[in-house]
Amino acid sequence: MSKDRPLILISNDDGILAPGIRNLIRLMKKLGDVFVVAPDKPQSGMSHAVTLDSMLYSERRCIDGRQTIEYSCSGTPVDCVKIAMNKLLPRKPDLCVSGINHGANSSVNVLYSGTMAAALEGAIAGVPSIGFSLLDHSIDADFSQSEEYVLHIALQVLEQGLPKGTCLNVNIPNLDSKLLRGIKVCRQSDGHWEEDFDERVNPMGKKYYWLSGKFFSNDKGKDTDIWALENGYISIVPILYDVTHYKAIDLLKEWNDD
Amino acid sequence: MSKDRPLILISNDDGILAPGIRNLIRLMKKLGDVFVVAPDKPQSGMSHAVTLDSMLYSERRCIDGRQTIEYSCSGTPVDCVKIAMNKLLPRKPDLCVSGINHGANSSVNVLYSGTMAAALEGAIAGVPSIGFSLLDHSIDADFSQSEEYVLHIALQVLEQGLPKGTCLNVNIPNLDSKLLRGIKVCRQSDGHWEEDFDERVNPMGKKYYWLSGKFFSNDKGKDTDIWALENGYISIVPILYDVTHYKAIDLLKEWNDD
Repeated sequence: MSKDRPLILISNDDGILAPGIRNLIRLMKKLGDVFVVAPDKPQSGMSHAVTLDSMLYSERRCIDGRQTIEYSCSGTPVDCVKIAMNKLLPRKPDLCVSGINHGANSSVNVLYSGTMAAALEGAIAGVPSIGFSLLDHSIDADFSQSEEYVLHIALQVLEQGLPKGTCLNVNIPNLDSKLLRGIKVCRQSDGHWEEDFDERVNPMGKKYYWLSGKFFSNDKGKDTDIWALENGYISIVPILYDVTHYKAIDLLKEWNDD
Repeated sequence: MSKDRPLILISNDDGILAPGIRNLIRLMKKLGDVFVVAPDKPQSGMSHAVTLDSMLYSERRCIDGRQTIEYSCSGTPVDCVKIAMNKLLPRKPDLCVSGINHGANSSVNVLYSGTMAAALEGAIAGVPSIGFSLLDHSIDADFSQSEEYVLHIALQVLEQGLPKGTCLNVNIPNLDSKLLRGIKVCRQSDGHWEEDFDERVNPMGKKYYWLSGKFFSNDKGKDTDIWALENGYISIVPILYDVTHYKAIDLLKEWNDD
């Protein structure tokens, strides 16, 4: 590890062997010394969960021929960032990046995402942080089309920092690089999932369910992440770990006792 | 179920048998028809996690002598609210309440909390929602001291509603009712955990860790949830599922491509 090069912590929620994180590691090596702590198995949909009632394993891994310091962790993406920051890293990193997620984390999906929770945990620890997602769930997703943008955004954050407590939710449309129109800084689009629980019966006659559903958005704003993605732009939504609804404080202040 | 009485969905993260939810059920019956869907086991620290790669069981339970419609669910608190809204409830509820959690969900703990995630999921589904937490982890926690306040807050929300997308994070100091000074509508206090991973070795010689740590806050504001709780008030922080940091959008707009 060099004292002069930035130290970059990398995590994700698809697990340490996912093509998305392997591509992110390759790119981030151009910008600094990388240190990987990522889940030992897929942890999609784990949000900001932490492991409280069970122990954690974390082990050094040799992937890509020992060229990179990498640890797997048996816990959630947020566990990975916590154990990295407090046990494994030689010093506080200069940047925390998470992803590249296989699939979108735009709109309300930011709340369910383990990728984005890892980035937000970095922000809580006072480290400028970014979560990257490509709108392609496939194991064969092509991360090369957008790599100049991923490098550009990470470099901007390394050089300029971010406002306190902020991390960036970066979503990338699944387009050929020639069709990518650039970057849009946006707000989170309003939206929700309508679940359709798939009901089945196990061999012992007991009912069980699979969670599935469709995403809906009625948000017609042209300043949203979904608009940007549908129009060929990479969306960047700055998000904050203070989730207070400040406008509602005024509306509710008549409830106050003195 | 009556058509005239409000329909109240109840969930939590400590599990369907926790004293906190049993007390909340008892109180909410004074305000309406209750419908319980809660985890079949403790799910503390599960945040907004959803179960994507595994199936879910959900079964009718007979607790308290069949007086209440109750289902357990093998998933997370957010799974419980999703399966309630989309599969189990006879209609959209008028109120969603979560808790009463055994332990604080003030400050940044709102992000890790399954109790608060269940309430936030209610808000995403367009239902006025509240998460309640008592600052006492004990199985013998005394929920009776604050029950007039819990009823008052739930009734206010039933009668007045809440701004779109908002739910309330209500934390209750562990005080005798005579010492409770009332309600304060607050912002989320700034704070973070400093983890102290407890390193052990299993009988096979392999290292493992327990996540533990201490909470720190340097936020001296008198408008925060932590200030309110330390001064004998019940804190109410309105929270929103739109986590966009709007002020940062302006700061970052020079990054935009046209």
